[in-house]
Amino acid sequence: MTTAHAPIHSAAPAHFAPVPLDKAYRLLNHGPTVLVSASHAGQCNVMAAAWACALDFAPPKVTVVLDKATRTRELVQGSGHFALQLPTVPLAALTEALGTESAHTHPDKLQRHAVPLFEAPALPGITPAQSPLLVQGCAAWLVCRVIPEPHNQQAYDLFIAEVVAAWADERVFRQGHWEFDTAPDSLRTLHYVAGGQFYATGASIKV
Amino acid sequence: MTTAHAPIHSAAPAHFAPVPLDKAYRLLNHGPTVLVSASHAGQCNVMAAAWACALDFAPPKVTVVLDKATRTRELVQGSGHFALQLPTVPLAALTEALGTESAHTHPDKLQRHAVPLFEAPALPGITPAQSPLLVQGCAAWLVCRVIPEPHNQQAYDLFIAEVVAAWADERVFRQGHWEFDTAPDSLRTLHYVAGGQFYATGASIKV
Repeated sequence: MTTAHAPIHSAAPAHFAPVPLDKAYRLLNHGPTVLVSASHAGQCNVMAAAWACALDFAPPKVTVVLDKATRTRELVQGSGHFALQLPTVPLAALTEALGTESAHTHPDKLQRHAVPLFEAPALPGITPAQSPLLVQGCAAWLVCRVIPEPHNQQAYDLFIAEVVAAWADERVFRQGHWEFDTAPDSLRTLHYVAGGQFYATGASIKV
Repeated sequence: MTTAHAPIHSAAPAHFAPVPLDKAYRLLNHGPTVLVSASHAGQCNVMAAAWACALDFAPPKVTVVLDKATRTRELVQGSGHFALQLPTVPLAALTEALGTESAHTHPDKLQRHAVPLFEAPALPGITPAQSPLLVQGCAAWLVCRVIPEPHNQQAYDLFIAEVVAAWADERVFRQGHWEFDTAPDSLRTLHYVAGGQFYATGASIKV
Protein backbone atom coordinates (compact mmCIF):
# COMPACT_ATOMS: atom_id res chain seq x y z
CA MET A 1 0.00 0.00 0.00
CA THR A 2 1.29 3.42 -0.88
CA THR A 3 0.28 6.72 0.50
CA ALA A 4 0.52 10.01 -1.32
CA HIS A 5 1.48 11.96 1.74
CA ALA A 6 3.89 11.96 4.61
CA PRO A 7 2.77 10.67 7.99
CA ILE A 8 0.06 12.84 9.45
CA HIS A 9 0.59 14.30 12.86
CA SER A 10 -3.03 14.65 13.70
CA ALA A 11 -2.51 17.05 16.55
CA ALA A 12 -2.60 20.71 15.65
CA PRO A 13 0.65 22.55 16.36
CA ALA A 14 1.16 24.57 19.50
CA HIS A 15 -0.09 28.14 19.29
CA PHE A 16 -2.73 27.21 16.67
CA ALA A 17 -5.56 29.65 17.43
CA PRO A 18 -8.79 30.50 15.62
CA VAL A 19 -9.06 33.79 13.73
CA PRO A 20 -12.50 35.42 13.50
CA LEU A 21 -13.74 35.30 9.92
CA ASP A 22 -14.12 39.07 9.73
CA LYS A 23 -10.37 39.38 10.36
CA ALA A 24 -9.34 36.61 7.97
CA TYR A 25 -8.58 39.00 5.09
CA ARG A 26 -5.77 40.46 7.19
CA LEU A 27 -3.92 37.17 6.99
CA LEU A 28 -3.47 37.69 3.24
CA ASN A 29 -3.52 41.47 2.93
CA HIS A 30 0.25 41.87 3.03
CA GLY A 31 0.69 39.67 -0.02
CA PRO A 32 2.43 36.58 1.32
CA THR A 33 3.30 33.56 -0.73
CA VAL A 34 1.09 30.63 0.24
CA LEU A 35 1.06 26.87 0.26
CA VAL A 36 -2.12 25.43 -1.25
CA SER A 37 -3.24 22.03 0.02
CA ALA A 38 -6.18 19.88 -1.00
CA SER A 39 -7.47 16.37 -0.35
CA HIS A 40 -9.74 14.21 -2.44
CA ALA A 41 -10.42 10.50 -2.78
CA GLY A 42 -7.71 9.59 -0.32
CA GLN A 43 -5.07 11.70 -1.99
CA CYS A 44 -3.47 14.85 -0.65
CA ASN A 45 -1.13 17.35 -2.23
CA VAL A 46 0.52 20.65 -1.41
CA MET A 47 1.84 23.23 -3.87
CA ALA A 48 3.23 26.73 -3.52
CA ALA A 49 1.53 29.75 -5.05
CA ALA A 50 2.54 33.39 -5.19
CA TRP A 51 -0.74 34.36 -6.85
CA ALA A 52 -3.25 34.27 -4.03
CA CYS A 53 -5.11 37.35 -2.90
CA ALA A 54 -7.95 38.52 -0.68
CA LEU A 55 -11.14 39.32 -2.60
CA ASP A 56 -13.70 40.35 0.01
CA PHE A 57 -14.10 41.12 3.71
CA ALA A 58 -17.34 39.47 4.89
CA PRO A 59 -17.90 36.79 4.09
CA PRO A 60 -14.18 36.62 3.36
CA LYS A 61 -13.28 35.51 -0.12
CA VAL A 62 -9.99 34.80 -1.86
CA THR A 63 -8.61 34.27 -5.33
CA VAL A 64 -5.86 31.83 -6.20
CA VAL A 65 -4.34 30.84 -9.53
CA LEU A 66 -4.00 27.07 -10.00
CA ASP A 67 -2.37 25.96 -13.22
CA LYS A 68 -4.08 23.17 -15.15
CA ALA A 69 -0.90 21.10 -14.97
CA THR A 70 -0.99 20.83 -11.18
CA ARG A 71 -2.14 17.81 -9.24
CA THR A 72 -3.43 20.09 -6.50
CA ARG A 73 -5.91 21.66 -8.92
CA GLU A 74 -7.40 18.24 -9.63
CA LEU A 75 -7.88 17.67 -5.92
CA VAL A 76 -9.42 21.11 -5.49
CA GLN A 77 -11.84 20.44 -8.30
CA GLY A 78 -12.67 17.04 -6.87
CA SER A 79 -13.29 18.13 -3.29
CA GLY A 80 -14.42 21.71 -3.79
CA HIS A 81 -12.10 22.82 -1.00
CA PHE A 82 -8.53 23.88 -0.40
CA ALA A 83 -6.42 25.47 2.29
CA LEU A 84 -4.14 28.46 1.92
CA GLN A 85 -1.39 28.64 4.51
CA LEU A 86 1.46 31.07 5.02
CA PRO A 87 4.91 29.47 5.15
CA THR A 88 7.49 31.11 7.38
CA VAL A 89 11.16 31.86 6.78
CA PRO A 90 12.38 28.39 7.89
CA LEU A 91 10.08 26.87 5.24
CA ALA A 92 11.52 28.84 2.31
CA ALA A 93 13.40 25.93 0.77
CA LEU A 94 10.42 23.61 1.24
CA THR A 95 8.15 26.21 -0.35
CA GLU A 96 10.44 26.49 -3.35
CA ALA A 97 10.51 22.70 -3.71
CA LEU A 98 6.74 22.34 -3.41
CA GLY A 99 6.34 25.04 -6.03
CA THR A 100 8.69 23.54 -8.58
CA GLU A 101 8.02 19.81 -8.25
CA SER A 102 4.68 18.47 -9.44
CA ALA A 103 3.08 15.42 -7.87
CA HIS A 104 2.45 14.27 -11.44
CA THR A 105 6.17 13.79 -12.02
CA HIS A 106 7.18 13.44 -8.34
CA PRO A 107 4.34 11.42 -6.82
CA ASP A 108 6.27 11.05 -3.58
CA LYS A 109 7.07 14.74 -3.23
CA LEU A 110 5.36 15.17 0.15
CA GLN A 111 7.17 12.15 1.55
CA ARG A 112 10.57 13.06 0.14
CA HIS A 113 10.36 16.50 1.66
CA ALA A 114 8.81 15.12 4.87
CA VAL A 115 6.09 17.74 4.74
CA PRO A 116 4.66 17.81 8.26
CA LEU A 117 0.90 17.62 7.90
CA PHE A 118 -1.92 17.77 10.41
CA GLU A 119 -5.67 17.53 10.23
CA ALA A 120 -7.76 20.67 10.40
CA PRO A 121 -10.43 20.74 13.10
CA ALA A 122 -13.75 19.31 11.91
CA LEU A 123 -15.80 21.89 10.05
CA PRO A 124 -19.51 21.89 9.22
CA GLY A 125 -20.22 21.05 5.60
CA ILE A 126 -16.81 19.48 4.95
CA THR A 127 -16.35 15.74 5.16
CA PRO A 128 -13.04 14.47 6.52
CA ALA A 129 -12.19 13.21 3.03
CA GLN A 130 -12.63 16.70 1.57
CA SER A 131 -10.82 18.50 4.34
CA PRO A 132 -7.39 19.71 3.23
CA LEU A 133 -4.50 18.65 5.40
CA LEU A 134 -2.56 21.57 6.84
CA VAL A 135 1.19 22.18 6.98
CA GLN A 136 2.91 22.58 10.33
CA GLY A 137 5.24 25.56 10.80
CA CYS A 138 3.07 28.04 8.94
CA ALA A 139 1.99 31.37 10.42
CA ALA A 140 -1.67 31.10 9.39
CA TRP A 141 -4.12 28.74 7.72
CA LEU A 142 -7.37 29.42 5.82
CA VAL A 143 -9.76 26.66 4.75
CA CYS A 144 -11.70 27.73 1.66
CA ARG A 145 -14.73 26.45 -0.26
CA VAL A 146 -14.64 26.95 -4.02
CA ILE A 147 -17.33 29.16 -5.53
CA PRO A 148 -17.83 27.52 -8.92
CA GLU A 149 -16.87 29.93 -11.69
CA PRO A 150 -16.06 27.67 -14.64
CA HIS A 151 -15.20 30.48 -17.06
CA ASN A 152 -12.57 31.96 -14.71
CA GLN A 153 -11.16 28.53 -13.99
CA GLN A 154 -10.88 27.59 -17.65
CA ALA A 155 -9.84 30.92 -19.18
CA TYR A 156 -7.56 32.22 -16.44
CA ASP A 157 -6.84 29.30 -14.06
CA LEU A 158 -8.45 31.61 -11.50
CA PHE A 159 -10.34 30.10 -8.57
CA ILE A 160 -12.62 32.11 -6.30
CA ALA A 161 -13.44 30.71 -2.88
CA GLU A 162 -15.03 31.63 0.41
CA VAL A 163 -12.96 31.32 3.56
CA VAL A 164 -14.89 29.06 5.93
CA ALA A 165 -12.38 28.89 8.79
CA ALA A 166 -9.05 30.48 9.67
CA TRP A 167 -6.36 30.06 12.27
CA ALA A 168 -3.03 31.64 13.02
CA ASP A 169 0.00 31.07 15.21
CA GLU A 170 -1.00 33.22 18.16
CA ARG A 171 2.60 34.24 18.75
CA VAL A 172 2.55 36.29 15.53
CA PHE A 173 -1.14 37.10 14.87
CA ARG A 174 -3.09 38.15 17.94
CA GLN A 175 -6.41 39.90 18.43
CA GLY A 176 -6.76 40.50 14.71
CA HIS A 177 -3.28 41.96 14.17
CA TRP A 178 0.04 40.74 12.86
CA GLU A 179 2.76 41.16 15.47
CA PHE A 180 5.85 40.41 13.41
CA ASP A 181 7.99 42.85 15.36
CA THR A 182 7.52 41.17 18.72
CA ALA A 183 7.29 37.56 17.54
CA PRO A 184 10.33 35.40 16.78
CA ASP A 185 11.83 36.25 13.37
CA SER A 186 11.31 32.62 12.42
CA LEU A 187 7.59 33.42 12.20
CA ARG A 188 7.99 36.07 9.49
CA THR A 189 6.15 35.22 6.31
CA LEU A 190 7.55 34.94 2.80
CA HIS A 191 7.11 36.91 -0.41
CA TYR A 192 8.29 35.09 -3.52
CA VAL A 193 9.75 36.72 -6.63
CA ALA A 194 11.25 34.06 -8.93
CA GLY A 195 14.18 31.66 -9.16
CA GLY A 196 14.36 30.82 -5.48
CA GLN A 197 14.34 34.49 -4.47
CA PHE A 198 12.10 35.38 -1.54
CA TYR A 199 11.84 38.39 0.72
CA ALA A 200 10.72 38.09 4.33
CA THR A 201 8.05 40.36 5.69
CA GLY A 202 10.05 43.32 6.95
CA ALA A 203 9.90 46.33 9.22
CA SER A 204 6.64 47.60 10.66
CA ILE A 205 5.48 51.01 9.43
CA LYS A 206 2.50 52.55 11.24
CA VAL A 207 1.04 55.76 9.84
CA MET B 1 -11.38 76.47 -13.91
CA THR B 2 -10.70 73.60 -11.58
CA THR B 3 -8.54 70.61 -12.05
CA ALA B 4 -9.04 67.24 -10.45
CA HIS B 5 -5.38 66.59 -10.03
CA ALA B 6 -2.21 68.18 -8.77
CA PRO B 7 0.15 69.86 -11.23
CA ILE B 8 1.62 67.32 -13.60
CA HIS B 9 5.35 67.07 -13.83
CA SER B 10 5.41 65.72 -17.32
CA ALA B 11 8.97 64.48 -17.12
CA ALA B 12 9.39 60.91 -15.98
CA PRO B 13 11.39 60.57 -12.79
CA ALA B 14 15.08 59.80 -12.81
CA HIS B 15 15.88 56.07 -12.95
CA PHE B 16 12.57 55.31 -14.75
CA ALA B 17 13.49 52.32 -16.92
CA PRO B 18 11.41 49.95 -19.05
CA VAL B 19 10.79 46.39 -17.83
CA PRO B 20 10.39 43.66 -20.46
CA LEU B 21 6.82 42.41 -20.45
CA ASP B 22 7.88 38.83 -19.76
CA LYS B 23 9.40 40.03 -16.47
CA ALA B 24 6.48 42.26 -15.48
CA TYR B 25 4.87 39.63 -13.24
CA ARG B 26 7.92 39.84 -10.98
CA LEU B 27 6.99 43.40 -10.09
CA LEU B 28 3.86 42.11 -8.32
CA ASN B 29 4.91 38.61 -7.27
CA HIS B 30 5.98 39.61 -3.77
CA GLY B 31 2.51 40.94 -2.97
CA PRO B 32 3.05 44.68 -2.63
CA THR B 33 0.30 47.17 -1.96
CA VAL B 34 -0.33 49.28 -5.06
CA LEU B 35 -1.63 52.65 -6.08
CA VAL B 36 -4.21 52.44 -8.86
CA SER B 37 -4.50 55.42 -11.18
CA ALA B 38 -6.85 56.08 -14.08
CA SER B 39 -7.77 58.95 -16.38
CA HIS B 40 -10.95 59.55 -18.34
CA ALA B 41 -12.70 62.56 -19.84
CA GLY B 42 -10.18 64.98 -18.41
CA GLN B 43 -10.35 63.56 -14.89
CA CYS B 44 -7.67 61.63 -13.05
CA ASN B 45 -7.73 59.80 -9.75
CA VAL B 46 -5.45 57.63 -7.66
CA MET B 47 -6.50 55.12 -4.99
CA ALA B 48 -4.64 52.55 -2.92
CA ALA B 49 -5.35 48.83 -3.18
CA ALA B 50 -3.98 45.87 -1.26
CA TRP B 51 -5.87 43.43 -3.45
CA ALA B 52 -3.90 43.37 -6.67
CA CYS B 53 -2.20 40.22 -7.93
CA ALA B 54 -0.41 38.77 -10.91
CA LEU B 55 -2.59 36.42 -12.98
CA ASP B 56 -0.42 35.29 -15.90
CA PHE B 57 3.12 35.42 -17.27
CA ALA B 58 2.93 36.07 -21.02
CA PRO B 59 1.11 38.09 -21.96
CA PRO B 60 1.21 39.35 -18.39
CA LYS B 61 -2.15 39.76 -16.75
CA VAL B 62 -3.23 41.08 -13.37
CA THR B 63 -6.28 41.14 -11.13
CA VAL B 64 -7.32 44.08 -8.99
CA VAL B 65 -10.35 44.62 -6.79
CA LEU B 66 -12.03 48.01 -7.31
CA ASP B 67 -14.99 48.76 -5.08
CA LYS B 68 -18.10 50.16 -6.75
CA ALA B 69 -17.96 53.19 -4.45
CA THR B 70 -14.62 54.39 -5.82
CA ARG B 71 -14.17 57.20 -8.29
CA THR B 72 -11.16 55.41 -9.76
CA ARG B 73 -13.37 52.50 -10.82
CA GLU B 74 -15.56 54.86 -12.84
CA LEU B 75 -12.48 56.18 -14.62
CA VAL B 76 -11.22 52.64 -15.27
CA GLN B 77 -14.57 51.67 -16.74
CA GLY B 78 -14.62 54.82 -18.85
CA SER B 79 -11.12 54.55 -20.26
CA GLY B 80 -10.58 50.80 -20.18
CA HIS B 81 -7.13 51.35 -18.70
CA PHE B 82 -5.42 51.81 -15.36
CA ALA B 83 -1.95 51.82 -13.91
CA LEU B 84 -0.71 49.84 -10.93
CA GLN B 85 2.31 51.31 -9.21
CA LEU B 86 4.25 50.26 -6.15
CA PRO B 87 4.58 52.94 -3.48
CA THR B 88 7.76 52.97 -1.43
CA VAL B 89 8.29 53.42 2.31
CA PRO B 90 8.35 57.25 2.16
CA LEU B 91 4.91 57.13 0.51
CA ALA B 92 3.25 55.09 3.30
CA ALA B 93 1.24 57.99 4.74
CA LEU B 94 0.20 59.14 1.27
CA THR B 95 -0.83 55.59 0.39
CA GLU B 96 -2.97 55.36 3.53
CA ALA B 97 -4.61 58.70 2.71
CA LEU B 98 -5.30 57.76 -0.91
CA GLY B 99 -6.83 54.51 0.28
CA THR B 100 -9.16 56.03 2.85
CA GLU B 101 -10.32 59.24 1.15
CA SER B 102 -12.61 58.96 -1.85
CA ALA B 103 -12.60 61.54 -4.61
CA HIS B 104 -16.38 61.43 -4.33
CA THR B 105 -16.25 63.02 -0.88
CA HIS B 106 -12.80 64.65 -1.25
CA PRO B 107 -12.77 65.86 -4.86
CA ASP B 108 -9.52 67.72 -4.24
CA LYS B 109 -7.72 64.77 -2.67
CA LEU B 110 -4.88 64.67 -5.18
CA GLN B 111 -4.27 68.39 -4.78
CA ARG B 112 -4.46 68.40 -1.00
CA HIS B 113 -1.92 65.62 -0.79
CA ALA B 114 0.15 67.15 -3.61
CA VAL B 115 0.34 63.80 -5.34
CA PRO B 116 3.26 64.15 -7.77
CA LEU B 117 2.04 62.90 -11.12
CA PHE B 118 3.75 62.43 -14.45
CA GLU B 119 2.66 61.29 -17.86
CA ALA B 120 3.44 57.77 -19.00
CA PRO B 121 5.34 57.46 -22.27
CA ALA B 122 3.03 57.30 -25.28
CA LEU B 123 1.77 53.76 -25.89
CA PRO B 124 0.20 52.24 -28.98
CA GLY B 125 -3.55 51.81 -28.68
CA ILE B 126 -3.93 54.24 -25.78
CA THR B 127 -4.95 57.83 -26.42
CA PRO B 128 -3.42 60.49 -24.18
CA ALA B 129 -6.85 61.03 -22.59
CA GLN B 130 -7.06 57.32 -21.61
CA SER B 131 -3.50 57.09 -20.39
CA PRO B 132 -3.32 56.90 -16.60
CA LEU B 133 -1.07 59.44 -14.95
CA LEU B 134 1.70 57.87 -12.89
CA VAL B 135 2.86 58.68 -9.37
CA GLN B 136 6.43 59.79 -8.77
CA GLY B 137 8.41 58.05 -6.04
CA CYS B 138 7.11 54.57 -6.74
CA ALA B 139 9.39 51.59 -7.34
CA ALA B 140 7.55 50.27 -10.41
CA TRP B 141 4.66 51.09 -12.69
CA LEU B 142 2.44 48.85 -14.87
CA VAL B 143 -0.03 50.22 -17.43
CA CYS B 144 -2.89 47.77 -17.91
CA ARG B 145 -5.77 47.36 -20.37
CA VAL B 146 -9.00 45.96 -18.95
CA ILE B 147 -10.19 42.62 -20.34
CA PRO B 148 -13.96 43.04 -20.12
CA GLU B 149 -15.43 40.49 -17.70
CA PRO B 150 -18.73 42.03 -16.63
CA HIS B 151 -19.74 39.18 -14.31
CA ASN B 152 -16.51 39.39 -12.30
CA GLN B 153 -16.74 43.16 -12.15
CA GLN B 154 -20.34 43.15 -10.95
CA ALA B 155 -20.33 40.12 -8.66
CA TYR B 156 -16.87 40.46 -7.13
CA ASP B 157 -15.56 43.97 -7.99
CA LEU B 158 -12.80 41.99 -9.68
CA PHE B 159 -11.08 43.44 -12.74
CA ILE B 160 -8.80 41.42 -15.02
CA ALA B 161 -6.37 43.28 -17.24
CA GLU B 162 -3.42 42.75 -19.51
CA VAL B 163 -0.20 44.58 -18.73
CA VAL B 164 0.74 46.56 -21.85
CA ALA B 165 3.83 48.35 -20.53
CA ALA B 166 5.93 48.32 -17.38
CA TRP B 167 8.75 50.33 -15.88
CA ALA B 168 10.74 50.27 -12.67
CA ASP B 169 13.20 52.41 -10.78
CA GLU B 170 16.40 50.91 -12.09
CA ARG B 171 18.13 51.39 -8.74
CA VAL B 172 15.90 48.70 -7.20
CA PHE B 173 14.76 46.50 -10.13
CA ARG B 174 17.48 45.66 -12.62
CA GLN B 175 17.80 43.05 -15.34
CA GLY B 176 14.56 41.42 -14.30
CA HIS B 177 15.36 41.20 -10.58
CA TRP B 178 14.47 43.12 -7.45
CA GLU B 179 17.60 44.38 -5.71
CA PHE B 180 16.13 45.60 -2.43
CA ASP B 181 19.24 44.67 -0.48
CA THR B 182 21.62 46.89 -2.43
CA ALA B 183 19.23 49.75 -3.21
CA PRO B 184 18.46 52.56 -0.75
CA ASP B 185 15.99 51.42 1.93
CA SER B 186 13.72 54.25 0.81
CA LEU B 187 12.98 52.17 -2.28
CA ARG B 188 11.54 49.23 -0.36
CA THR B 189 7.93 48.53 -1.22
CA LEU B 190 4.96 48.34 1.12
CA HIS B 191 2.63 45.57 2.27
CA TYR B 192 -0.59 46.82 3.88
CA VAL B 193 -2.51 45.06 6.64
CA ALA B 194 -5.21 47.37 8.05
CA GLY B 195 -5.61 50.51 10.15
CA GLY B 196 -2.50 52.29 8.91
CA GLN B 197 -0.32 49.22 9.51
CA PHE B 198 2.17 48.41 6.76
CA TYR B 199 5.22 46.21 6.59
CA ALA B 200 8.15 47.02 4.33
CA THR B 201 9.59 44.39 2.05
CA GLY B 202 12.23 42.77 4.23
CA ALA B 203 15.32 40.62 4.14
CA SER B 204 16.35 38.68 1.05
CA ILE B 205 16.16 34.90 1.29
CA LYS B 206 17.70 32.95 -1.60
CA VAL B 207 17.21 29.20 -1.65
